[in-house]
Amino acid sequence: MYDRIKKSFDRQGLMKTLGAELLNVEKGQVKISCQFSEKLTQQHGFFHAGVATSIVDSACGYAALTLMPENAEVLSVEFKINFMKPAKTDKLIAIGKVLQSGKTLTVCEGYVYDSSEEKLLSKMTATMISILY
Amino acid sequence: MYDRIKKSFDRQGLMKTLGAELLNVEKGQVKISCQFSEKLTQQHGFFHAGVATSIVDSACGYAALTLMPENAEVLSVEFKINFMKPAKTDKLIAIGKVLQSGKTLTVCEGYVYDSSEEKLLSKMTATMISILY
Amino acid sequence: MYDRIKKSFDRQGLMKTLGAELLNVEKGQVKISCQFSEKLTQQHGFFHAGVATSIVDSACGYAALTLMPENAEVLSVEFKINFMKPAKTDKLIAIGKVLQSGKTLTVCEGYVYDSSEEKLLSKMTATMISILY
Amino acid sequence: MYDRIKKSFDRQGLMKTLGAELLNVEKGQVKISCQFSEKLTQQHGFFHAGVATSIVDSACGYAALTLMPENAEVLSVEFKINFMKPAKTDKLIAIGKVLQSGKTLTVCEGYVYDSSEEKLLSKMTATMISILY
Repeated sequence: MYDRIKKSFDRQGLMKTLGAELLNVEKGQVKISCQFSEKLTQQHGFFHAGVATSIVDSACGYAALTLMPENAEVLSVEFKINFMKPAKTDKLIAIGKVLQSGKTLTVCEGYVYDSSEEKLLSKMTATMISILY
Repeated sequence: MYDRIKKSFDRQGLMKTLGAELLNVEKGQVKISCQFSEKLTQQHGFFHAGVATSIVDSACGYAALTLMPENAEVLSVEFKINFMKPAKTDKLIAIGKVLQSGKTLTVCEGYVYDSSEEKLLSKMTATMISILY
Repeated sequence: MYDRIKKSFDRQGLMKTLGAELLNVEKGQVKISCQFSEKLTQQHGFFHAGVATSIVDSACGYAALTLMPENAEVLSVEFKINFMKPAKTDKLIAIGKVLQSGKTLTVCEGYVYDSSEEKLLSKMTATMISILY
Repeated sequence: MYDRIKKSFDRQGLMKTLGAELLNVEKGQVKISCQFSEKLTQQHGFFHAGVATSIVDSACGYAALTLMPENAEVLSVEFKINFMKPAKTDKLIAIGKVLQSGKTLTVCEGYVYDSSEEKLLSKMTATMISILY
């Protein structure tokens, strides 16, 4: 399972560009981190909302994929994310968890924490779709 | 007004990293584009959802900022985005438009088009907050 | 087309309970209104957010259904709604419009206006799914 | 605290119309239930999505209010809700929980369960605003 996700993750050019790292893969849960860099900032010098969103979207998509058949691919249908605290931290840790897994659609919850993994910075809910090949 | 937005845009490290360009600034509307590159892909070789999301979030935030007082800064409270078509295009064009401008909160609509600016790929609704300094 | 929607609308017990009325059905667009009553209020005496949400969800669902095959039924996958102005009006007018129609999923935009149909009170984006029978 | 919420709840005409009941009030968490009736259905005879949405929006709003000062009122800024299972049950149980409480904005998670309180039917994330009087 880890290999399947890792192979796909390594094909995501954006994850490399952001310096994101695949930390953990379990059935229905995936964790991705991203080290701070000035290349990832918004105008006040903290992580841009787009960075948190990108890694937690990937984490949710891969969490969904762990529960899909081998010949399936996953696409984001939509997501909503709340930014609760400014992302002033040296590392973002994003966790995607499957809330409801269906044949076509999967609903995931995404969490973005600071480097201590204690302060919840952002919260996502995402709908993913399974595409069979 | 363009200068205020441009100065802030140039401080966003992520926009530089994505190769994003500030195309247009009007009262209540901002346009940002992003050229395709293999550094910005998801696993199937198209633009990652996070790229579209990052530039349209910036476009919405700056659209909101054009209607805020000079001593205000803007932060994303939350947004929701639907991905309607795969982002198979050589350039993304993101447009943020203010739908409702209040003293504290501003609601924006964000649109991500392909390079022809005819095919709507993604649609965002964002809530922005004004922080006074 | 009107008959198909009208028949389904009349089976919605909630629409009767809210006093909602099916005003208009076109390909990809449906309009529903709801007269003010003290039975529909929140604690400050205006329309409860749930009333606006219920009728605009129905309007979006039926707008999606107008573009689906005859043997299809529609279900709400998810929606997001922003409440921009307090619903101080004697009538709510909800309009659902299809933004993107696919084989499985349909994305709709929903608008809730005051009785003059000039003041936009709320804005929804909804994802609908087609279920074939 | 219960009295403050109960008094406000009893002024919501819609809650009476839906037959909703305030079950429980704790700091940061509120529970509301709603008995099935044919007055609350969608076209297939189950609970209309609008009913689940209305009660869980109220539960989230009141959960937020339990953490606000005495002279504050609460309004829904926006919410997003996913409908994961058809609401085939004789009673809906909605729980609103505060995820992040700020001076102006409060982010809540809302859960709608079936009558056994075991099957999660819908999941909401809501942004609430505090209005001082």
